Amino acid sequence: MNKENSFTLQCPLSLSDYPHVLLAHGGGGRLMNQLIEKMILPEFENPFLKTRHDGAILPVAGGKVAFTTDSYVVHPLFFPGGDIGSLAVYGTVNDLAMCGARPLYLSAGFILEEGLPMDTLWRIVKSMKMAAEKAGVQLVTGDTKVVDKGKGDGIFINTAGVGVFEHDLIVGPKQIQLGDAILINGDIGRHGIAIMAEREGLQFESTVESDSAPLAELVLKLISAGIQIHCLRDLTRGGLAAALNELAQAGGLTFEIDERAVHLDGQVRGACEILGLDPFYVANEGRLIAFVAAEDAGRALALMQSHELGRGASIIGKASEKSPGQVTLMSRIGTRRILDMISGEQLPRIC
Amino acid sequence: MNKENSFTLQCPLSLSDYPHVLLAHGGGGRLMNQLIEKMILPEFENPFLKTRHDGAILPVAGGKVAFTTDSYVVHPLFFPGGDIGSLAVYGTVNDLAMCGARPLYLSAGFILEEGLPMDTLWRIVKSMKMAAEKAGVQLVTGDTKVVDKGKGDGIFINTAGVGVFEHDLIVGPKQIQLGDAILINGDIGRHGIAIMAEREGLQFESTVESDSAPLAELVLKLISAGIQIHCLRDLTRGGLAAALNELAQAGGLTFEIDERAVHLDGQVRGACEILGLDPFYVANEGRLIAFVAAEDAGRALALMQSHELGRGASIIGKASEKSPGQVTLMSRIGTRRILDMISGEQLPRIC
Repeated sequence: MNKENSFTLQCPLSLSDYPHVLLAHGGGGRLMNQLIEKMILPEFENPFLKTRHDGAILPVAGGKVAFTTDSYVVHPLFFPGGDIGSLAVYGTVNDLAMCGARPLYLSAGFILEEGLPMDTLWRIVKSMKMAAEKAGVQLVTGDTKVVDKGKGDGIFINTAGVGVFEHDLIVGPKQIQLGDAILINGDIGRHGIAIMAEREGLQFESTVESDSAPLAELVLKLISAGIQIHCLRDLTRGGLAAALNELAQAGGLTFEIDERAVHLDGQVRGACEILGLDPFYVANEGRLIAFVAAEDAGRALALMQSHELGRGASIIGKASEKSPGQVTLMSRIGTRRILDMISGEQLPRIC
Repeated sequence: MNKENSFTLQCPLSLSDYPHVLLAHGGGGRLMNQLIEKMILPEFENPFLKTRHDGAILPVAGGKVAFTTDSYVVHPLFFPGGDIGSLAVYGTVNDLAMCGARPLYLSAGFILEEGLPMDTLWRIVKSMKMAAEKAGVQLVTGDTKVVDKGKGDGIFINTAGVGVFEHDLIVGPKQIQLGDAILINGDIGRHGIAIMAEREGLQFESTVESDSAPLAELVLKLISAGIQIHCLRDLTRGGLAAALNELAQAGGLTFEIDERAVHLDGQVRGACEILGLDPFYVANEGRLIAFVAAEDAGRALALMQSHELGRGASIIGKASEKSPGQVTLMSRIGTRRILDMISGEQLPRIC
């Protein structure tokens, strides 16, 4: 008993505040941030984790590679615009792309629940195959586990990815500079609303599809054109607001965002109003923000807009102050407010 | 309906024989083999998967790296000799070592079930940290997801690993040669029995502990001594029998094993008898087999026995015939039988 106590006392998260894991600990908001920053990262601290990047950039074989991982627990497994299989490929490909790397190799770890219909697994495998081809990556190693019925939820997939560098650009939160322009490659909120609509049986005039897509080609196009990209981040859990806040904190800068420059599809806007969701916090799976040297902003925007995954690109703001690491939003009616990180999440199991 | 039919008809596994995923599809036996070989690997076929290795050996940055993944769903989370955290580190480290690589970097993907006690997570994180230090690897990137209560089982962990090569030796199933000696680094069955005893509340005179341990140092010691290692395999799900059968098939050779050279702890033997388990099929987490050129066998054995993780090493057999890819066992009483791969598994969720 004593031993147990002295052990649990060391836990850096308050066990009386949070005796159990909550759904919100996985939601991309403040609680997840706290869990990871206070409890997990300090235990493993090393220069690779310290970058707070979407992946690690590792010295190997006289060069360097990018390495990243994500588990996918999205519910439902199939949704307009994608499924857990394509999501598991694109999500990890995108994390490598956000490091500035060319994604080359993926691993796949399947956790199957006993009783999963075999043809469901088959459809997911087929979808992964097509997604890997589209993203230009090879699945090179894998693992399959089965858990008893009632101890999983059909299928969870983990993918890890390895990418290589074809340039010397260093892309990461610490590289963001005062004055950098912040670009986005399209409208926000599609993935979250597509999932939510599927779960809740919402009907739209036309189906809202997830934006899920592989972003590496778009990024490499910018880099090979010589755009001075300082940082990239894809807008997944917690949406645009979480990504901006994480980077503002990691870079120690304040970002000023112009709400009018952030685009929303009309149906997504309507769904958010009905569901009481703020689209800034809704997940995307094919959207990124790029921090670009101010003098390159116009050229970067034009390059994005000439790519099929950047047609709706816009410049949404800039890195405006040296501190204190927050995000301000200039609203449509000209008022300014702080765009905070939410505590938990709006939508669980979005990816 | 028609579309659905034409789609499912393409599934290379018979959907009438196996309409659903069974626990046995994760057990390391014939069913798992079939699922992976017929349904998953052909979809992604490439030269890296074709090696049927524990990991992929990838050209990057002018050199090469080893890359592998495993998900861990062991139940219970804590057991004599380890826990899901240390297992998730050592298991992936070992897969890299079986490629002949020095493990350097790990990713960690946590799938937490809502309601998991926070101090359980903390103990597991602490254990991973200690295991990573012991194995000489750094955890460099990660991900945390939370699923609703009843849709997971406390915690599942995926780790992927990256390793580097300090030599030019090619280690893999295709390298096994006729006449190769087969070495093992100790007695078998400890991990499976430790888990089973914990689940079933079995009592022994002294506790049977899992053999879970990082094997890279042992392997690199053999390699740096110039031992001609042709292939390595760790003996996890499906035990010694599954590993031998997979390699016999992949290498297209027949292996002859001498049962008397395969060591068993007395308590493990007793537990197997009580539980009706064949120890050849029981999982290990700190045991490997090495295929070594016959002329190096004696020296390899001595080197193994001088390492703390190889004290109980022995030479258990040889690659005896050019075909047809099976394993024969010479029993203690001098009879010969085929050591087949079992269909499902003896123990679910062993790792």
